[in-house]
Amino acid sequence: MKILKILTLLLASGSLFAQEKPKNVILLVGDGMGLSQISTAFYYKDGPSNFEQFKNIGFIKTSSTSSKVTDSAAGATAFASGKKTYNGAIGVDADTLSIPTIVEELDAINFKTGLISLSTITHATPACFYAHVKSRNMHEEIAEQLAHSQVDFFAGAGLQYFTQRSDKKNLFKEMKLKGYQMDSIGLATSIEPGKKYGFISEKEALPAKHISRGDFHPKATQLALDYLSQSKDGFFLMSEGSFIDWAGHQNNAEMLVAEQLDFDEVLGVVLDFAKKDKNTLVVVTADHETGGVALTKGKTSDELSLKFNTKSHTAALIPIFAYGPGSETFQGIYENNEVYHKIKQLLAL
Amino acid sequence: MKILKILTLLLASGSLFAQEKPKNVILLVGDGMGLSQISTAFYYKDGPSNFEQFKNIGFIKTSSTSSKVTDSAAGATAFASGKKTYNGAIGVDADTLSIPTIVEELDAINFKTGLISLSTITHATPACFYAHVKSRNMHEEIAEQLAHSQVDFFAGAGLQYFTQRSDKKNLFKEMKLKGYQMDSIGLATSIEPGKKYGFISEKEALPAKHISRGDFHPKATQLALDYLSQSKDGFFLMSEGSFIDWAGHQNNAEMLVAEQLDFDEVLGVVLDFAKKDKNTLVVVTADHETGGVALTKGKTSDELSLKFNTKSHTAALIPIFAYGPGSETFQGIYENNEVYHKIKQLLAL
Repeated sequence: MKILKILTLLLASGSLFAQEKPKNVILLVGDGMGLSQISTAFYYKDGPSNFEQFKNIGFIKTSSTSSKVTDSAAGATAFASGKKTYNGAIGVDADTLSIPTIVEELDAINFKTGLISLSTITHATPACFYAHVKSRNMHEEIAEQLAHSQVDFFAGAGLQYFTQRSDKKNLFKEMKLKGYQMDSIGLATSIEPGKKYGFISEKEALPAKHISRGDFHPKATQLALDYLSQSKDGFFLMSEGSFIDWAGHQNNAEMLVAEQLDFDEVLGVVLDFAKKDKNTLVVVTADHETGGVALTKGKTSDELSLKFNTKSHTAALIPIFAYGPGSETFQGIYENNEVYHKIKQLLAL
Repeated sequence: MKILKILTLLLASGSLFAQEKPKNVILLVGDGMGLSQISTAFYYKDGPSNFEQFKNIGFIKTSSTSSKVTDSAAGATAFASGKKTYNGAIGVDADTLSIPTIVEELDAINFKTGLISLSTITHATPACFYAHVKSRNMHEEIAEQLAHSQVDFFAGAGLQYFTQRSDKKNLFKEMKLKGYQMDSIGLATSIEPGKKYGFISEKEALPAKHISRGDFHPKATQLALDYLSQSKDGFFLMSEGSFIDWAGHQNNAEMLVAEQLDFDEVLGVVLDFAKKDKNTLVVVTADHETGGVALTKGKTSDELSLKFNTKSHTAALIPIFAYGPGSETFQGIYENNEVYHKIKQLLAL
């Protein structure tokens, strides 16, 4: 009877699927998304924020080996490869030695893998999942490593690093010849299981949401899920809300709110998928906070005024949210590189 | 076999004592303690922060009925009485009607109750647990309501509101006559179960930690636990780190770090007790963030510089941490007044 009662309570609390093995993993990174950024969704969104759907919450400690205040490269290397490294490092450790990424490890066991960024696909956050170079500025080398990678699906900007290169190679064409369905204009409307997809726009980044990006991010994420979920062996998707960071760097409150609400929409897409699928672990976090944002009193008691303390990154703890099988593992407070180890343990790798 | 396996996993994850009924409840309020404030403990403390001991983490939404940016009075009324109210309200709802506090409700069923503040014991945060007045500035009325309350143990400042009153009453003497062991100088060295204790210093507040407070807060909390835990029927203790807020108002980084580290010590005292006791629920949170604090880059990569965005409160989500029986209930994101309802539900009131 006691066991039955406990099981009933646990079923009611949704704990029973915790500690089970997920088939798929989705990692959403809101670049520069600290707690104040997340909080804007609760004040500026019509209806409840999708963050409110999470029960399993923790914090990560983000310092890199070179600075108490990390950059996106060291942060994403910690997520992708499980090691703390120096600011600027892409998939290499503090001694500049290559370290395997979760995407490479999962590609090797037939997972489908996907990466989405609103910045260039060679930018620090996505790059750390497939490239190994000593500096985040080496965009051409990073592009070449993407061309030689096993990544199944990617979407972002930065076509110039593939087509206007100092070595005169045209990686866009090379990837087409390798079998990638490459597109420099828009997202596909239909996708096929056997093919690989690369969507890569000409610019240095997609446009900002409050200018003209539209629903690129939720749409690209939905397309990736439609494609990746055809995999029988599981999939890994990293999707980055890149411009929350840029809004912080620019101390642009309007942009920040628009980007945070867009990221919230992506959260909705991912959680809808995970709820139906039941075998997908969703992890949402950030590399660091950007801007030292505060939600101060506005002109009236019903208004807020977003203020910034810096044009750079800050060192506050970063919230981490998890949903799905194994999500309880992400409770508590721990180092950012533990995210990698927790995912690997849950996948029993 | 499946049930056995699940139970083994749950035992390993510590989930089994969750959802059970706690005997005692300790609520620690770090006034003005947002995530950046908490984060300082991870950078400035020798050794790990006691926050790292928590697994069950959530966020509360703090807006009051009168403003998106709450004050301590509306915040503490939400914790103490379960209702959102206007800024400045002490234990009254938005229509200025008295609403029962958890301390009153628990006193009525023989719980021992205790309140600790580094500010005056009539200040907004402690006052909301025993008083009902329409404005936080009514210190003399609040002091009189404490004198007529059933609170078993309190420690703080504000003797003048008891002895230098416009109605010429001497509440300090009155409380002594009622059986309180009153002291205006220091904490008792020994305590007896049958008696009530009031420690109330002469000043407007205890000194700031970085000036001369010493270990008053951890000591007062330990003394309260020694006393309250003699209760057979359970106890409720609210202990407030008042000066984290004041450091924010003053934009004083040195003071902020000293106060946060002192609060971390109090956390250690409380968690040590709860671990031994096993029947105590510990909840740690804040009413709001103060100062719009950011941990920006310092002069070197190994240093941080604390910067402030405002001399007032901010509206960011506030972290909430829980330990002990029922602590899983505090996961997720919810309104600040839910804290009261969750505690009451767990106590099966």
